[in-house]
Amino acid sequence: MNIGIVGLGLIGGSLGLELRGLGHHVLGLSRQKQTCEVAQEHGIVNQASIEPSILRMCNLVFLCPPVGQIVSVAQQIEPYLNTQAILTDVGSVKGAICQTLTKLWPRFVGGHPMAGTAQSGILAAEPDLFRHRPYVLTPIPETDPQALALVSQIVDSLGAKRYICSPAAHDRAVAWISHLPVIVSAALIRAGGQETDPELAQLAQSLASTGFRDTSRVGGGNPELGRMMAEFNQDELLFCLKIYQQELNALIEKISIGDWPGLENYLAMTKQLREHYSLD
Amino acid sequence: MNIGIVGLGLIGGSLGLELRGLGHHVLGLSRQKQTCEVAQEHGIVNQASIEPSILRMCNLVFLCPPVGQIVSVAQQIEPYLNTQAILTDVGSVKGAICQTLTKLWPRFVGGHPMAGTAQSGILAAEPDLFRHRPYVLTPIPETDPQALALVSQIVDSLGAKRYICSPAAHDRAVAWISHLPVIVSAALIRAGGQETDPELAQLAQSLASTGFRDTSRVGGGNPELGRMMAEFNQDELLFCLKIYQQELNALIEKISIGDWPGLENYLAMTKQLREHYSLD
Repeated sequence: MNIGIVGLGLIGGSLGLELRGLGHHVLGLSRQKQTCEVAQEHGIVNQASIEPSILRMCNLVFLCPPVGQIVSVAQQIEPYLNTQAILTDVGSVKGAICQTLTKLWPRFVGGHPMAGTAQSGILAAEPDLFRHRPYVLTPIPETDPQALALVSQIVDSLGAKRYICSPAAHDRAVAWISHLPVIVSAALIRAGGQETDPELAQLAQSLASTGFRDTSRVGGGNPELGRMMAEFNQDELLFCLKIYQQELNALIEKISIGDWPGLENYLAMTKQLREHYSLD
Repeated sequence: MNIGIVGLGLIGGSLGLELRGLGHHVLGLSRQKQTCEVAQEHGIVNQASIEPSILRMCNLVFLCPPVGQIVSVAQQIEPYLNTQAILTDVGSVKGAICQTLTKLWPRFVGGHPMAGTAQSGILAAEPDLFRHRPYVLTPIPETDPQALALVSQIVDSLGAKRYICSPAAHDRAVAWISHLPVIVSAALIRAGGQETDPELAQLAQSLASTGFRDTSRVGGGNPELGRMMAEFNQDELLFCLKIYQQELNALIEKISIGDWPGLENYLAMTKQLREHYSLD
């Protein structure tokens, strides 16, 4: 199959590598001439170009720009798509994108491969990035069933764990497990930064260990990604944050009044709840 | 030197192993006869007993029971100590312990080895547990300088990174980097547990990945340890929680009003702040 990849970063590049390995003919589109050259040299695509006409022969096109640019990039490439082509994206928030792009292109299927590394950019591309990782597809009632079937088949061929749900369910789920943790963790780092005694702040920094390291990791991540996830998933994130705030207040209350058995019960329940998650 | 270890769990056992390796004669005291047998069989101590009289010949005694029992155990063994003996503890909160035990035993020095594993109990004991890990000593004005010098020397011989500060500074620092993260992380787990749509809750559990895993890790830990750290460090933990609450509210405000540049700035600052911490 001829497969187009629009946006050759970590996700686009890794898709290219894996799909080429599966025998597809992969055509890349990037804004940067240099990225096209790197993608060709590293065998990430069969051919790459800065001209959207490269997509004309594609049966399937993956939209892989940053989430904030997916709709505008789709509008730019739409005139160049083969009328039978199936379009899919890799955006980390799905509500608005699925509504808008299904209207723009009836053979659109929303998708979100939940894979990544600490790296970004074409040179970070890895085959196997999607293997055993969740890949969520988010059809809406208007979605073309044939398009969904084809994208499903490709996702399965990547070795990913495929999930199918509504865009709204996806956006709530990722707010809980991905976007809320970023905010919770950022507030932790910034709270410690409010310590006014410099010697004490330095002592805390020296004593910090795995507990602080892990709890603060996602709050110390890419600020632009953090901003985008909040901007594009604002309502679901605020919903989760309100509930988080209530839980935090309940804990502060228990600690304030010295309800130690109540606190221990609470922590016993969190220990148990956490075991329900699929954590490697 | 004859060194006594009171309480043969992970920390006491690991101290025993390491100190024996350094050529000391190690005498263990445990409430459990079986623990004494295991400690002897595994070469963790030279000799162990359930009788506190085993401590009579010790020059230095480590108090290693759970933090909530350190004062009462110290009172129980005090009549059996050699008058010249130096006493130290390994409790994770220092304020009250240092005041009380310095009155009980003038040659007391408060200590906190910041080392551990996910395991507990004598069978989890490891030599090298303290190597390159922080070990905080918390003298007060009344502390005997000779006692501090000797405990310092022993801590250095374990290969630990020794820090010396007041009990209050220690307790504030560990509230920031160890106790606050537990509460922040527990509230995250419990908030997700409030999702009322069972299919959605299951989807979130399936999609959870490294971000959720790391941010939720310490909140899903030992409930009894979590309770003790809050109970014994209540004031400092509440101080940190109030500041955390303000930071969380500031973030919710930015997201509510859609102040995306403000959010990105905030996250850029957390990224930078996190780099000040000594994280492996």
